[in-house]
Amino acid sequence: MEASDSNYHLVSSQKIFDHPWVKIIHDTLEFKGHRLQYFYLASPVEAVATVGVTALGEILLTRQYRHPVGEVIFDLPAGRLEPGEDPLDGARREFEEETGYYPRCIQPLGYYNQFPGTLRAATNLFFASDLQPTRQKLDEGEFLEIVSMPIEDVLQMVLRGEVIDGSLQLGVLLAYHKGLLAPAS
Amino acid sequence: MEASDSNYHLVSSQKIFDHPWVKIIHDTLEFKGHRLQYFYLASPVEAVATVGVTALGEILLTRQYRHPVGEVIFDLPAGRLEPGEDPLDGARREFEEETGYYPRCIQPLGYYNQFPGTLRAATNLFFASDLQPTRQKLDEGEFLEIVSMPIEDVLQMVLRGEVIDGSLQLGVLLAYHKGLLAPAS
Repeated sequence: MEASDSNYHLVSSQKIFDHPWVKIIHDTLEFKGHRLQYFYLASPVEAVATVGVTALGEILLTRQYRHPVGEVIFDLPAGRLEPGEDPLDGARREFEEETGYYPRCIQPLGYYNQFPGTLRAATNLFFASDLQPTRQKLDEGEFLEIVSMPIEDVLQMVLRGEVIDGSLQLGVLLAYHKGLLAPAS
Repeated sequence: MEASDSNYHLVSSQKIFDHPWVKIIHDTLEFKGHRLQYFYLASPVEAVATVGVTALGEILLTRQYRHPVGEVIFDLPAGRLEPGEDPLDGARREFEEETGYYPRCIQPLGYYNQFPGTLRAATNLFFASDLQPTRQKLDEGEFLEIVSMPIEDVLQMVLRGEVIDGSLQLGVLLAYHKGLLAPAS
């Protein structure tokens, strides 16, 4: 049966878990005489993550313990938007807070959702350059290191499967394909 | 403060929402004298998604209505592992059920998590080829179309930002970089 017909009707919607960061929603839809149960997670705000390149041609990575995966990992300067905040403003704010650099140039790079069938929580990816040193402002309980790494090393780390963070992997590959990263030859 | 010290101790753990597909966990950790609150979502099983290429050099995409994002979108043949199932076996099973093709060749392509700080639910990416026609076996209430699209068109769609699904974006870029996709020149 064709699915590109978006003629789905919402029959009922129930919020079965409600928290400031995540809601769990159970919707019943009707589609061509069928009743469909849809169970999904929704975040009230979207996320942002930024590939930032220094004047020396290195990428600024964050390195921190991530409890859900139980490991110290590399990821991108990233965070949640504040309610109503523009994604680009939020990306610039999070980048400066975590790295201590204000990106004078910042542009949209991509947008993705790991589970569009069960999750409403997208990540907006950005590319930043022309980084001006300011001051790091970490949240209470936020412990992270900033690691500056040559572009080619980051790319190889991604291709060798050593990075779990989806934003770091996708952000670096998108930036590379868009000609924003030029690894030293 | 350095974060690469993974000397975090679990003080307490509480399951505040428990469902067969998702658990919400609130853990308290101790790190260098600080008490940290960690709130995250955990799925009991991982996901799989597969970039499959036909003998004609086209990628098999799924097209379906995804209620959390409220749109009909392109994504990859994908699904959840069954408890204890090997990711490669699960990817082959989901690929055959959704597309009606059994992949005689299938190999690991990548692994990612959109939110390693707030989510324990990774997606295992695979690359499949040598596709043998069998029979589609959709779940009750699963409506999708299979669309076969030239590699170069998929790549351009990803780079133009027309794809929301993270697995389709990352899978295609990883396969391209690993030399598994050779767009017609």
